[in-house]
Amino acid sequence: MIVLNKIVIFGTGLIGGSFAAALRKAGAVRQIVGIGRTAASLQRAKELGLIDTIGTSMEEALHDADLVLLSVPVAQTESVLVAIKPWLQPQTVVTDAGSIKGEVVAAAERALGEKFAQFVPGHPIAGRELTGPDAAVADLYVGKKVVLTPLPQNAAASVARVADAWQQCGAVIHRLTVEQHDAVFAAVSHLPHLLAYALVDDIASKPHADLLFQYAASGFRDFTRIAGSSPEMWRDISLANQPAILNELDAYIAQLARFRALLAQRDGDAMQTMFSRAQQARSEWLRSLEEAEAQSQDRKQ
Amino acid sequence: MIVLNKIVIFGTGLIGGSFAAALRKAGAVRQIVGIGRTAASLQRAKELGLIDTIGTSMEEALHDADLVLLSVPVAQTESVLVAIKPWLQPQTVVTDAGSIKGEVVAAAERALGEKFAQFVPGHPIAGRELTGPDAAVADLYVGKKVVLTPLPQNAAASVARVADAWQQCGAVIHRLTVEQHDAVFAAVSHLPHLLAYALVDDIASKPHADLLFQYAASGFRDFTRIAGSSPEMWRDISLANQPAILNELDAYIAQLARFRALLAQRDGDAMQTMFSRAQQARSEWLRSLEEAEAQSQDRKQ
Repeated sequence: MIVLNKIVIFGTGLIGGSFAAALRKAGAVRQIVGIGRTAASLQRAKELGLIDTIGTSMEEALHDADLVLLSVPVAQTESVLVAIKPWLQPQTVVTDAGSIKGEVVAAAERALGEKFAQFVPGHPIAGRELTGPDAAVADLYVGKKVVLTPLPQNAAASVARVADAWQQCGAVIHRLTVEQHDAVFAAVSHLPHLLAYALVDDIASKPHADLLFQYAASGFRDFTRIAGSSPEMWRDISLANQPAILNELDAYIAQLARFRALLAQRDGDAMQTMFSRAQQARSEWLRSLEEAEAQSQDRKQ
Repeated sequence: MIVLNKIVIFGTGLIGGSFAAALRKAGAVRQIVGIGRTAASLQRAKELGLIDTIGTSMEEALHDADLVLLSVPVAQTESVLVAIKPWLQPQTVVTDAGSIKGEVVAAAERALGEKFAQFVPGHPIAGRELTGPDAAVADLYVGKKVVLTPLPQNAAASVARVADAWQQCGAVIHRLTVEQHDAVFAAVSHLPHLLAYALVDDIASKPHADLLFQYAASGFRDFTRIAGSSPEMWRDISLANQPAILNELDAYIAQLARFRALLAQRDGDAMQTMFSRAQQARSEWLRSLEEAEAQSQDRKQ
């Protein structure tokens, strides 16, 4: 096991705080420095033992760091990297936890210039409904996927260092290209979020919204759970992954138009075929998801 | 408390079986007769003590019955009512548990003719992922809504008998017109189901579906949970509530077109406003839902 001497975490909430807690629990790091915009949140992270020190000077924080994790809103990536760059030593590897990669990579290239190769983009697929340092838990990433989208410029050892750190957290490493990543998440994450927001807003804007909400039940609650997410974050993701999301949205609108035609023609057989195909695909997916989770739990034990 | 002498339940699965279990637990019925298409399921309902006897002759089953509940697929309502009609005595009230009401009422009018006034339409808003008699539980309806859509032809005492039975199960009675009911459920239940089926089918039909499903996570799982529902049932509901669903689907497609325009123009402010409105409306709804559930639990105790 590689033990990191020092890591610096920008943003010590759920994602960054859980990374810290997991590495600490694994004994995979000696010193953790936290940096963030909110003093209270950093103080809390320190009280909880997630971080050892609160970084006040960028120079001191980054001195002799092995690894830097950015767990900040995607739209802040560039400004954080600009602030880091002057103090970024050659042996330090920087990674992030952003849920889109194309814009993050572009921001990193602009911000880091000749130090761009030190940036290894990453995306842990894990979350909870809660946020902030109090939500951080050491087992958040156990059995979860972390997608790395290494750049042609990255040294193999830099990618390995990031992969190893996430594996110490219990995560399973996947690799995609930046383009694959953004297309995949536009389909299975970004589009569903936007559809859920759109449905709730559609209902809320009707004159008889109160009556409608009175009869919304558990199916509606689950369907719209992701519409409880942060509006700022989803504005940023929508803008950052706009081309891929537009593609997926257009495909979905075309799918709804096909379904509308079947319904207008009262074509019960074709509708049932579509519902069955969906039900079947979903149940196969759930089965493989459960198998994969069981396997990774076994590996962990 | 009114104690019913005899009730007859068509379909002794989750909905009918839980109705039986709840009335039995409340001591609100002396004899329960079960009728259904599947001998094994009826036998199981009897073993579980949900029903006292399996009805074999329609005449005998309906003789001196106070209440008949149809918990069969909506599309079977008419044929069951046609079979009942010759043996339906004047003092017997018939109700149903169908999730649409317009087509059910039309079917009842065709099937029952001069006995139509004995039919009081109902819709319990409760469910579980499981089905069949083994899924039936006595507390399924505690604190849940049952929507009655009484007809102008119904005698007040008939409506009261149905309402009282559901109240004995712990349910809260709501009243809507048939048209209100079908419009409301098209918006908050039928449309979300169709959107979830459409999304899963859209993804499953892509050439790289396997890659996509690999990265679908808990948000996707909750969003598509309702796409695990019975395809036959949703074909029937789609056909039975077609006009109201087309209305809601058109409104939603228009909403997506508006959102698409904002995204294409990269109008982050307007997107964030929409997301915030939705997030806010959902969190208010959840709060009122929790309050209502807490209140009805209090009333029950």
